[in-house]
Amino acid sequence: MYDLIIIGGGPAGLTAALYAGRSRLRTLLIEKMALGGQIILSPTIENYPGFPGGIDTHELISAMRRQSEELSIEIKTEDSVGIIPQGGIFKVKGREEEFEAKAVIVTSGAFPKKLNIPGEDKLIARGVSYCGTCDGPLFKNKEIFVVGGGDKAVEEAIYLTRFAAKVRLIHRRDQLRASKILQERLFENKKVEILWNTVPLEILGEKAVEGLKIRNVKDASQKDITAGGVFVFIGIHPNTEFLGNLVKKDEGGFVLTDEDMNTSVEGIFAAGDCRRKTLTQVITACSDGAIAAFNANRYLETK
Amino acid sequence: MYDLIIIGGGPAGLTAALYAGRSRLRTLLIEKMALGGQIILSPTIENYPGFPGGIDTHELISAMRRQSEELSIEIKTEDSVGIIPQGGIFKVKGREEEFEAKAVIVTSGAFPKKLNIPGEDKLIARGVSYCGTCDGPLFKNKEIFVVGGGDKAVEEAIYLTRFAAKVRLIHRRDQLRASKILQERLFENKKVEILWNTVPLEILGEKAVEGLKIRNVKDASQKDITAGGVFVFIGIHPNTEFLGNLVKKDEGGFVLTDEDMNTSVEGIFAAGDCRRKTLTQVITACSDGAIAAFNANRYLETK
Repeated sequence: MYDLIIIGGGPAGLTAALYAGRSRLRTLLIEKMALGGQIILSPTIENYPGFPGGIDTHELISAMRRQSEELSIEIKTEDSVGIIPQGGIFKVKGREEEFEAKAVIVTSGAFPKKLNIPGEDKLIARGVSYCGTCDGPLFKNKEIFVVGGGDKAVEEAIYLTRFAAKVRLIHRRDQLRASKILQERLFENKKVEILWNTVPLEILGEKAVEGLKIRNVKDASQKDITAGGVFVFIGIHPNTEFLGNLVKKDEGGFVLTDEDMNTSVEGIFAAGDCRRKTLTQVITACSDGAIAAFNANRYLETK
Repeated sequence: MYDLIIIGGGPAGLTAALYAGRSRLRTLLIEKMALGGQIILSPTIENYPGFPGGIDTHELISAMRRQSEELSIEIKTEDSVGIIPQGGIFKVKGREEEFEAKAVIVTSGAFPKKLNIPGEDKLIARGVSYCGTCDGPLFKNKEIFVVGGGDKAVEEAIYLTRFAAKVRLIHRRDQLRASKILQERLFENKKVEILWNTVPLEILGEKAVEGLKIRNVKDASQKDITAGGVFVFIGIHPNTEFLGNLVKKDEGGFVLTDEDMNTSVEGIFAAGDCRRKTLTQVITACSDGAIAAFNANRYLETK
């Protein structure tokens, strides 16, 4: 029996582990793939305080992992498929094993949203990608599309110009949501063309991406443009299906919490990108994790 | 006219500056003393994610400062004495100068609480201290008291054993609030004696601290114990007097905000230790600062 199980090993989960370890809670962290979560889909992070000039995301995650290892946190690779409250404790069901704890922090993160247009599913890993860092080098000297207008889309579009001959960013509105510093860098980049007021209709190609059918939302005109790749950065979807109806979520599936990271079930906390919040950043995920662990410890002291 | 003025240069203010800079807001940060705020009262920080083994607090603050310098944030030394809303903008009055901005983020932090017992005021800097890092070396081979039972008190008690011959920690309850890892280190330290259920009544001495009059709250017994120093770590008090009644505060003077760092006045945000929150840590202050800057930018976009 653990005091605490943390589900997810991104910045929120690793910081929760750090704080739980310092409170000497007997803590298990389970992560279904590699530690880091969504952050490792980006090569570097520039806006985490304490690292002027930015830091390689793998380095940052590895530093966070070492910090939890200093506190003897147990880390297992396991995919959590459900939490069952039972007589004041929680059973966390994995695909292989089952674990028990007195409290749970859900830091299961989120994953990139799909466009849900024809051709997308068929061509994933054949030119359709949700991760520039992972797949960028495969598009050397090709012309590619980036879909989206937020920080992530703009960062990735800039990054992808390292490889691609040309990057066409298409965005459904007439201005970007991305921060000004990123917009400036995008606008200065000679390899980038921006198609405003434009939405993707269909990804073209049979065995590999050959182009994108787009529509201008102002004049409703359509055209097909040849391309070797389509990168999609239009938001995130939380990894919270495994919770079923156990805790309250919003319409998008994000877990609802208060400012102390309490979910609707006493003893279950949520932190990071899987909860509903305004700003999903590494620094806010870490803070969520610290707060969740602090309040989990308080909760355990009253048991 | 600035887009944004940030009042206070601790982790919350510096992170707000980082995010405001990336949003290309014309930003002024004013700090009344040295950048860093309360954090520089501690020598190292072990629980900021990304630095296994801990990091020197001056180094961390200096890294954060360089990050905001990369973004050309203007930093001035000035003590803010008031904010005056005027026709949709804010005048920030300093002791020397007056500045104007369309939005303000208050990250003015907090300072250590006093005991408010006889002898305390008279003997400040004569043996009474609120900062082990600042004053510890002055107490080489002396016997000293530490008052408090939270993380800060226990950390400082351990730190002070580097200098002092003996550290007596007095705490009004029969257990400490500090995290378990700190308690273990304290209990293992041969130079530390803990006086449980004990409160300080009077700091003794005329020109320098000579002892402490204490009372056991269980049996009401009193005694005087000889000591060369008294370190006080019993909580914090927010630097929010300069706000007067402009924004809503709680009974302790902490600014009330929602999760997006909005205060009761539109266009004024608060972040870090000066706002009411459960967990005051560097990581949570940074997160607050990021969220405040993000929402200040949103607010400015609607102006």
